Amino acid sequence: HANGGRPALRGANPRGGSSVFSATKLTGRRRPAGRMPLRRVAIFASLALNVAALALLRHRYVVSHPHHPGVVSLDQQHHVCAPQPGTSGAAASAPSTGKPGVTSDSVINLDHGDPTMFEAFWRETGDAAELVIPGWQTMSYFSDVSNVCWFMEPDFDQQVRRLHRTVGNAAVDGCHVLVGTGSTQLLMAALYALSPAGAVQPTSVVSTAPFYSWYPAVTDFLRSGLFRWAGDANSFVGDAYIELVCSPNNPDGAIRDALLGSGGAGKAVHDLAYYWPQYTPITRRADHDIMLFTMSKSTGHAGTRIGWALVKDREVARRMTKFVELNTVSVSKDSQLRAARVLRAVSDGYDGGASRHQLFDFGRRKMAERWRMLREAAAASGIFSLPEVTSGRCNFANETAANNHGT
Amino acid sequence: HANGGRPALRGANPRGGSSVFSATKLTGRRRPAGRMPLRRVAIFASLALNVAALALLRHRYVVSHPHHPGVVSLDQQHHVCAPQPGTSGAAASAPSTGKPGVTSDSVINLDHGDPTMFEAFWRETGDAAELVIPGWQTMSYFSDVSNVCWFMEPDFDQQVRRLHRTVGNAAVDGCHVLVGTGSTQLLMAALYALSPAGAVQPTSVVSTAPFYSWYPAVTDFLRSGLFRWAGDANSFVGDAYIELVCSPNNPDGAIRDALLGSGGAGKAVHDLAYYWPQYTPITRRADHDIMLFTMSKSTGHAGTRIGWALVKDREVARRMTKFVELNTVSVSKDSQLRAARVLRAVSDGYDGGASRHQLFDFGRRKMAERWRMLREAAAASGIFSLPEVTSGRCNFANETAANNHGT
Repeated sequence: HANGGRPALRGANPRGGSSVFSATKLTGRRRPAGRMPLRRVAIFASLALNVAALALLRHRYVVSHPHHPGVVSLDQQHHVCAPQPGTSGAAASAPSTGKPGVTSDSVINLDHGDPTMFEAFWRETGDAAELVIPGWQTMSYFSDVSNVCWFMEPDFDQQVRRLHRTVGNAAVDGCHVLVGTGSTQLLMAALYALSPAGAVQPTSVVSTAPFYSWYPAVTDFLRSGLFRWAGDANSFVGDAYIELVCSPNNPDGAIRDALLGSGGAGKAVHDLAYYWPQYTPITRRADHDIMLFTMSKSTGHAGTRIGWALVKDREVARRMTKFVELNTVSVSKDSQLRAARVLRAVSDGYDGGASRHQLFDFGRRKMAERWRMLREAAAASGIFSLPEVTSGRCNFANETAANNHGT
Repeated sequence: HANGGRPALRGANPRGGSSVFSATKLTGRRRPAGRMPLRRVAIFASLALNVAALALLRHRYVVSHPHHPGVVSLDQQHHVCAPQPGTSGAAASAPSTGKPGVTSDSVINLDHGDPTMFEAFWRETGDAAELVIPGWQTMSYFSDVSNVCWFMEPDFDQQVRRLHRTVGNAAVDGCHVLVGTGSTQLLMAALYALSPAGAVQPTSVVSTAPFYSWYPAVTDFLRSGLFRWAGDANSFVGDAYIELVCSPNNPDGAIRDALLGSGGAGKAVHDLAYYWPQYTPITRRADHDIMLFTMSKSTGHAGTRIGWALVKDREVARRMTKFVELNTVSVSKDSQLRAARVLRAVSDGYDGGASRHQLFDFGRRKMAERWRMLREAAAASGIFSLPEVTSGRCNFANETAANNHGT
């Protein structure tokens, strides 16, 4: 796998929704930019840094080792993770930020993004999304043993449903909500749940090219006998398959439907990580059997590792829960409480309408601004070309909105 | 698998370290108690409840549906997760507690435990272990990109090392610390890292019987082509294997060494979840190639889902990190910060020595008390027999201490 050895290439990488500059992927590999000589990348980066306003880049993950993308030099690292006083003192150390500073010789890392763009929004909201966890809290394994997803905090379930009703991007009535350690865990859980337990051959996992480069890696890294990556859905022949539908698609932002359909032995998993108003017009209420979402892309809380699935069938929901149980026993309650608090703050921003703190409006402005900067930089360099802007009627914004896709 | 369909049987179940009554397991199956008619279990439970002081049971996970172990009745559930006001209001809902109340017709669930015994200790410590997370914190994927475990919070690393130095139960100098979503994830990561990528046959995974019932389930649920459960280490023939060494052992509390050794193509993973002073005398500083620990058993924070590994070899550490990356991208930063805060409070309790808040002393008293109650209940019932008490010189407590094992 091309990502081997470098940190955080998934999630961070192809879904770098908040990157100023992020590599567009084709069929799971880097676009030609990734194969340019590093010197040319450096020259382009230098040019781009002059064209774009440097100030706006302060929240970006930028590296200084062009030969080791993803690795920050040690002196930069000191700015990120200041040395802590080892074994002494009772004061808590500062948490990491993951953000080395931008210097004049910084080179833009085209390989992956980091949703720290949203940090500015959450700083503005003050303590509306602040969480306090006493030392004695969340000690039990159990959250709600009457729920098929027994480790899910009831408040998280409620805030997920509330947000989808507010945005109108997914139907939640009659669905089971499942929580996962990010949506990657739930993607694997879906593969596990949809693969017949008694099958002689592994079930084929397909997606229409260009597909998210993480899909084949996640499907195959344990060489499961239950499921196996089978490539482009366009060339698949057979009737037992799991089709991964990413919409808006990573890497190209296209709105997609299942190619093969979900009839018979074929099943579809809809990865709707980017189906939020900051990335694309919300043109319909998605209503599929399995829909995946993640905090990383909806609110920008990547480090919290919370994703969720909306699942119609109870037995599928039960088997997905079983996967999480065998994989990590359950999902951090602290993170779930955090996520519930953050999702509540997002919905509160739109309930009543008078709040200044409206996440999707902030996100749309930022994304539009960054696409404009990227277009200017690309035009100035003459090296890159970028897709045309598309737009559509957004039911949520109640106006025509651009597709500011995040891949 | 015998655990199918019921909630939280791993970690909770065979490692029910804080259970008043927990089923001892033999070769991964329930001991004869589990095969008793449910009516007799109910009679015994009723008797035991009379013998034991009910007040001490208020933190226990007890079920009311004898025919559905692990499932709490709906009316009890209302006490746990009070209905929340759906989409209205800005006040945060109370987090779950996982603790239905004990009633006169409660039946003790022998199937699994829950470390809520420790909750009383953490309530006493006040805000020493309280964590505040602002809305804008921990948004990045990255924690320390100079570390092989790039998503690990530096403070968590430091507090893990500090606690092991304080307790003297494991050597940390020269080790890589890795963080996982509980130790189950790190166990799978170790299997992934130790299985040769190019092997034609899956690597055999073994453990000496009686072994922890979760091991075969976690090894085989994805039918990996990299590793496969091969049963009792005593009957294993071959030289390519991974031996899981649980010490103190689940289910019997025995201190164990690797049976097959780690030479040649054979590797050992030491699961030291219970190697803490509340469960067993600390007689030596463990110093193995791969050692696994978990918050669930050390401090009782099961819902936080944080485990850690101490790993000597850098390449093994890198591959284990890669597993976590492919599995869940990274590990919740919120939980890591929480864990660092909690571990810090534990070490602080022993630095200086004057603090009243000493976790392991609290834990030893509680465990001794509960074993005494269990012995009295067993003697009164005449149905169960229990192993003899053993003891040893504890380097940490600096006195002879009983083996209050937690399985």
